[in-house]
Amino acid sequence: MTSEATLGRFREYMVGPSRFMTLLSCFELGIIDRLRATPGLTADKLGAAVGAKPDAVEQLLHLLVKEGFVALDEKSGGYSLDALAEVPELDLRRALTYMNMIKVVALRQFFYLTDSVRTGSLVGLKELYGAEGTLYGAVAEHRDLRESWATLMDTVTAHIDPWFFGNIDVPAGAQVLDLAGNTGLGAIHTYQHKTSPGLRVTTFDLPEKEQDALENFRSHGLEEHLSFIGGNVFDEIPKGFDIVLIKHFLDMFDRDDVFRILSGVNASLEVGGQVNIMVPVYPEDIRDTDNYNVDFFPAFFIGATMGQGGPQKLSVYQSWLEECGFEVTKAITKSAAEIPPDVIPVQAILCATKVR
Amino acid sequence: MTSEATLGRFREYMVGPSRFMTLLSCFELGIIDRLRATPGLTADKLGAAVGAKPDAVEQLLHLLVKEGFVALDEKSGGYSLDALAEVPELDLRRALTYMNMIKVVALRQFFYLTDSVRTGSLVGLKELYGAEGTLYGAVAEHRDLRESWATLMDTVTAHIDPWFFGNIDVPAGAQVLDLAGNTGLGAIHTYQHKTSPGLRVTTFDLPEKEQDALENFRSHGLEEHLSFIGGNVFDEIPKGFDIVLIKHFLDMFDRDDVFRILSGVNASLEVGGQVNIMVPVYPEDIRDTDNYNVDFFPAFFIGATMGQGGPQKLSVYQSWLEECGFEVTKAITKSAAEIPPDVIPVQAILCATKVR
Repeated sequence: MTSEATLGRFREYMVGPSRFMTLLSCFELGIIDRLRATPGLTADKLGAAVGAKPDAVEQLLHLLVKEGFVALDEKSGGYSLDALAEVPELDLRRALTYMNMIKVVALRQFFYLTDSVRTGSLVGLKELYGAEGTLYGAVAEHRDLRESWATLMDTVTAHIDPWFFGNIDVPAGAQVLDLAGNTGLGAIHTYQHKTSPGLRVTTFDLPEKEQDALENFRSHGLEEHLSFIGGNVFDEIPKGFDIVLIKHFLDMFDRDDVFRILSGVNASLEVGGQVNIMVPVYPEDIRDTDNYNVDFFPAFFIGATMGQGGPQKLSVYQSWLEECGFEVTKAITKSAAEIPPDVIPVQAILCATKVR
Repeated sequence: MTSEATLGRFREYMVGPSRFMTLLSCFELGIIDRLRATPGLTADKLGAAVGAKPDAVEQLLHLLVKEGFVALDEKSGGYSLDALAEVPELDLRRALTYMNMIKVVALRQFFYLTDSVRTGSLVGLKELYGAEGTLYGAVAEHRDLRESWATLMDTVTAHIDPWFFGNIDVPAGAQVLDLAGNTGLGAIHTYQHKTSPGLRVTTFDLPEKEQDALENFRSHGLEEHLSFIGGNVFDEIPKGFDIVLIKHFLDMFDRDDVFRILSGVNASLEVGGQVNIMVPVYPEDIRDTDNYNVDFFPAFFIGATMGQGGPQKLSVYQSWLEECGFEVTKAITKSAAEIPPDVIPVQAILCATKVR
């Protein structure tokens, strides 16, 4: 790679934040919706419609014209959707949900990334919200964080849970523990996807989640089959279960904490007991350009949500499971072809059996 | 452009902020300097050296390995500079100066871009610094903004002024006015590049710049040839000059304000008087992928420095000059080949003579 090519990449990086917000702002202002409804509007008319100076509308739209997202008719000065007209609305909404989460949860916090790395804590969350601890605590207190975060997580869960349950085995009548199962959505999905006589799913999470979880169980009419145990995964994990599920969780922690969690799960199971994990993974060859996880998750986990953490390669999780007394029986990564091209996380499933 | 391609571009945009800060943070932490001094350090050793957990060092470096900036020897776990080793230090320092300015001045403020567009004011600067007005006012009060901004502007000026003065004509003994000339650096450069018997250069800017400007003139031993007039370009522009210079200024304003400035300059000159302008420009075909000005400046001016403004195409400035009573005698854009590949602004020079 020549020095010129490297410096050219630096320029790509430099315009990353401005590109991101210019695009998102065109949606936030309502410019794209207006153009969808009325193609051919000029900057003057768009400005009047969305409450912005036409000069600013024209400035922002330059980038969207450059990208071919929007077309400008030079003669009339009228704008219309170009490539954006072809994107199905559901796809667009998914992408915008992710972009909004990145803006609200991460953009400003990234300013403090270096301090967050040095302290292992979320300096940005402290500076901007006065919040100690992690994003998952702060979302309880701050509506803007909660709404952008929860909306995204619901979208992600809806898209990925069917794939997870289609790939794991839950024998009839199994006793299942959903580790760090939040307010019970994972337990509900487990029951819905894997119903069998005698199946019981228990959500394990911090005691303050119990009320919401029980209410969720009742509102789905599943209170007979689902239950909640309050506790902390770093203390003791409840015994008496055949299967433990760990979804969207291990990637939040550094190696030492992942080992504490996996060892705790091992201690809670009998030999032959199983753990099923879903987690985003880095590609085995980190230089794989199709995988965007390393472009996003390190800064996101260390700088905006946990002050630590980040995914690993599938092979790393595999060897960590083995070190913690499991035999891995399945390890698959979702293929790029199955993931919409705007979606960053590349998820994997690891199934493992306790052997010692 | 297919829907898939559009969504893929959205993903590129989504990872813009995290990529930007991950790369910059590796420099801020001192990881790159350590690797330059001692190739082959592991994440453990790097972590100990820079005061960060090895897990976090490894997470951040994944992206630099993906980019080929840094190499990882899988066997030893040792990192060394790859493409980054080839980049001359001066080039790297220039790029990092720009990146630091983007981080300090723009990254957090971009969060408020939509509100800034709607209000035509810098909502981010208000929220984050309690500052009213523009960045150029705020830099006087806030050291972090001033240092990141001034360091960049000095770098930019040092690189671009020789090109400007090499392309404009300043006849012997001319009386020159440097419009919005700040604390006199432009006047000093003008004198140094265009020395002639009787040449006099006057900096015109807000009265509070006078002391610093006069001191700069004295420290360069040029106080005989340079002077300062305090005032506001939107009130009256001083008369009695043959040539007016307008550098790094017109791009800060929307059309109506640019017209007020150009009309004011026209009123200040006799017929035959000249104006020489340097300003970044958008390409005539906005879809030109070599030019990154539309990727950066709209968000930067509207969201982080002025609450308005942004460059125009060369042809637009040309027609605005003509509408304001000038005949354009020269209009050139710096060729991409002359601009280092990390540098965003593509500058142009417009020379014009008052004809009415």
